[in-house]
Amino acid sequence: MADWQSTVTPPALARLLAGAPPTEERTAYRRLAAQLRSLVSAGRLPVGTRLPAERELAQALTLSRTTVATAYESLRSEGYLRSRRGSGSWTALPEGSRPPGDALHPVPPHESGHLVDLGVASLPAPQPYLGEAAARAVEQLPAYATGHGQYPTGVPVLREAIARRFTERGLPTTPDQILVTTGAMSALHLFQRTLLNRGDRVAVEAPGYAHTLGLLQREGARLVPVPLARPGGDTALPRWDTEEWSRVLRGAAPRAAFVVPDFHNPTGALIEEEQRRTLLAAARTSGTVVVVDETPAELDWGTDRMPLPTAALDRAAQTVTVGSASKILWGGLRIGWLRAQPALIRRLAAERVYTDVGTPVLDQLIAAHLLDHALPEVRAHQHARMRDTAHALAAALRTQLPTWQFALPRGGLCLWVATDGHSTTALAETADPQGLRLAPGPSFATDGTLEPYLRLPLTIPADQVEDAVTRLRTVTMGARGTARATRGALT
Amino acid sequence: MADWQSTVTPPALARLLAGAPPTEERTAYRRLAAQLRSLVSAGRLPVGTRLPAERELAQALTLSRTTVATAYESLRSEGYLRSRRGSGSWTALPEGSRPPGDALHPVPPHESGHLVDLGVASLPAPQPYLGEAAARAVEQLPAYATGHGQYPTGVPVLREAIARRFTERGLPTTPDQILVTTGAMSALHLFQRTLLNRGDRVAVEAPGYAHTLGLLQREGARLVPVPLARPGGDTALPRWDTEEWSRVLRGAAPRAAFVVPDFHNPTGALIEEEQRRTLLAAARTSGTVVVVDETPAELDWGTDRMPLPTAALDRAAQTVTVGSASKILWGGLRIGWLRAQPALIRRLAAERVYTDVGTPVLDQLIAAHLLDHALPEVRAHQHARMRDTAHALAAALRTQLPTWQFALPRGGLCLWVATDGHSTTALAETADPQGLRLAPGPSFATDGTLEPYLRLPLTIPADQVEDAVTRLRTVTMGARGTARATRGALT
Repeated sequence: MADWQSTVTPPALARLLAGAPPTEERTAYRRLAAQLRSLVSAGRLPVGTRLPAERELAQALTLSRTTVATAYESLRSEGYLRSRRGSGSWTALPEGSRPPGDALHPVPPHESGHLVDLGVASLPAPQPYLGEAAARAVEQLPAYATGHGQYPTGVPVLREAIARRFTERGLPTTPDQILVTTGAMSALHLFQRTLLNRGDRVAVEAPGYAHTLGLLQREGARLVPVPLARPGGDTALPRWDTEEWSRVLRGAAPRAAFVVPDFHNPTGALIEEEQRRTLLAAARTSGTVVVVDETPAELDWGTDRMPLPTAALDRAAQTVTVGSASKILWGGLRIGWLRAQPALIRRLAAERVYTDVGTPVLDQLIAAHLLDHALPEVRAHQHARMRDTAHALAAALRTQLPTWQFALPRGGLCLWVATDGHSTTALAETADPQGLRLAPGPSFATDGTLEPYLRLPLTIPADQVEDAVTRLRTVTMGARGTARATRGALT
Repeated sequence: MADWQSTVTPPALARLLAGAPPTEERTAYRRLAAQLRSLVSAGRLPVGTRLPAERELAQALTLSRTTVATAYESLRSEGYLRSRRGSGSWTALPEGSRPPGDALHPVPPHESGHLVDLGVASLPAPQPYLGEAAARAVEQLPAYATGHGQYPTGVPVLREAIARRFTERGLPTTPDQILVTTGAMSALHLFQRTLLNRGDRVAVEAPGYAHTLGLLQREGARLVPVPLARPGGDTALPRWDTEEWSRVLRGAAPRAAFVVPDFHNPTGALIEEEQRRTLLAAARTSGTVVVVDETPAELDWGTDRMPLPTAALDRAAQTVTVGSASKILWGGLRIGWLRAQPALIRRLAAERVYTDVGTPVLDQLIAAHLLDHALPEVRAHQHARMRDTAHALAAALRTQLPTWQFALPRGGLCLWVATDGHSTTALAETADPQGLRLAPGPSFATDGTLEPYLRLPLTIPADQVEDAVTRLRTVTMGARGTARATRGALT
């Protein structure tokens, strides 16, 4: 391998190790090896990361150099570490193992086999609607094929369709306020890359959407987590803690705040309008841009009363709204969008020449067709499916894992479950080789906390729920010993 | 506008101003205003950039504060600057004006009107092949629609088709060495984001591909430009200066080197195998990853003898190859790829959850179908078109602008023309309001040089060439006075 590994400094590795799941190994070198192995498996120490020299790590951990050397040697023998004279040692995965088991990374369908994937929360496409829209889009293609096919802000018909849908939802919008992106993450990434600098303070929800937290952390933002309020405990849906939000915005004056008010990911919370207004007022005072991620907003499968979109309550035009077709239409289209002032849309569009230049034309035509001509049917189709899964999952959990606690949301794509004190990181590691992928709580935290929580997706078919929960229960029973050993560390 | 403008420091702005095209304004404040306006129009000072306070800029430029204040006031009155008490002043564009006139940013077809676009080098889709492939892809869609549609490494049939095409071209490749990306820029960006750190030294060609240079500069790379060798002057195609490459790799030990050896953008140079071998040997010694951008490699419209792909000559597996379907198939598909060792492919795929997650499925199926079943026909179709344009363009330039010099390449998508001493930045600015977009030389430089050069695309229809060159000549005649005034500064 050539000379371009990323590196981890001894203090940074010491911090990561402090947050690694506990192990039952008794000797120091085995404990260190087990923790490093688990960081690599969980994707927290990316494959190809150069580790500190033995002497340096020993100093940082106040261990003997021999301990570190023996741990490294043990990892090398298992395939988790590779070394070369003069180049140091870097993390690896044993031959034949799957990519780092961060269960939030999608496994492509053809590789998933008998896997029960409770990591990724994504639906199959609503058929026959997708196929019909695709056929119509192909008919329209010749009109676009005479040009170079690059639309930095998006194909006009889709910008119009998205603007119309915002307007229908109570947020008057014109097409020049819309930027079509290659999925919602692309929109978040474009915002981050264009408008945030390394070291900027950014307020986030705790728990928060894993990939948003991961993106911001990787790009050097200083995250200020604002915990959700849980006045009803784990059996009630949380709310925003608006007092804490006001305190944080006033005190830290973060450049941006990232929130998911419409069926919050991962808890499913639906924030009421009054709380939205309070947050916007505080953000106006502190000069904070509020980035509203509406990815789950169309998944209102359990309510017929949605609050107004957050940006509709924003009198200072300081809100940027991100949306996605991936949940309600199909993830394979990779269509997302960003709504903001036209001047900002133009600026972001210009920045795209350094990434994807634009989003593919055909998928935009398909999304436009679905939004314009089939949205009610598609919504009904996807909502029915998710509602069935949600109720089946709630019933199965109450029967099979009766000590676990959760609140059934009124929409969104996941259930946030409080296990009775398990290390869900350890659970996920145990489950993975058994063909069960789990999204452990700490993926949704900025600081390795939330160990006892698990996010379960409402996107698997209802008739697979029973089997999935049975597998989950089996893994849990097997992990009982570990879980006990762990509990103390979690409180 | 909220509080998230980027800023430019007084010394950085002074450097930018030193590189701005000359102006004929006689008073100091008008000169400063004209230069600032031109930096904004050319996109070198992005819209929304906060300018230094008047006093600070006056100091940096050794001008009076009144001069700077009057220039700012003049720009404000024209709409190029906005100010707010306590927030300073930031760059803007007058109402109704088009986005920054960087001609390398695509103008979507529906907005281009009567524009003659010699900025972007992109072809229309090859019909009827694209339409046929799209119809076939829609037939295959139901098999994919049952899954979540997310393929971080790419849909298997396309990975296989790309691997086969590499193998056909003399570079044996397996599908697990292929990552499908949303266009070639996405691949370059993913490489940069994953494997380069701010401050890393990166060697680039001079001239080089504008968006690659722009990406690397924005992300904080320290660019080390290596000039192409021009032993035959402007009427012969350049080569690599392998002695200079060896010296730079040995001396600077850059982390990566970005090259376009197959019909280099912008010069059209086709690097011979022996030079590729020499560069690879030097890179192996210095531990430099060679990133080979093969975007134009299938555009061999003027030769039937292509050198082996660079990676086929690389015995140390330290090459990363980037390719694109945007030029030979269609830009509206947004399909690109990256070829590397499987371990690196997996690592890059994992990083994609923070940007586009994956590339849309349908476009991948279309590209796979075209590569597998229609590549010879599509190549013949696009090659005939580009060959016709290239010959028409060469003839029109020789007739209408006989003092301009160029070498006709044997492939690729552009002609690199030495004007007789014009400031092409000034030419582009004059041309833009007249409906003619030009890509000035400094866009392909790291340091504002290459003013007298112009990149002309071989992608417009042959029957529009005469009109385009006539417009170009008209603009040039009008700019004659300015050009004279400029020449001294260029040599």
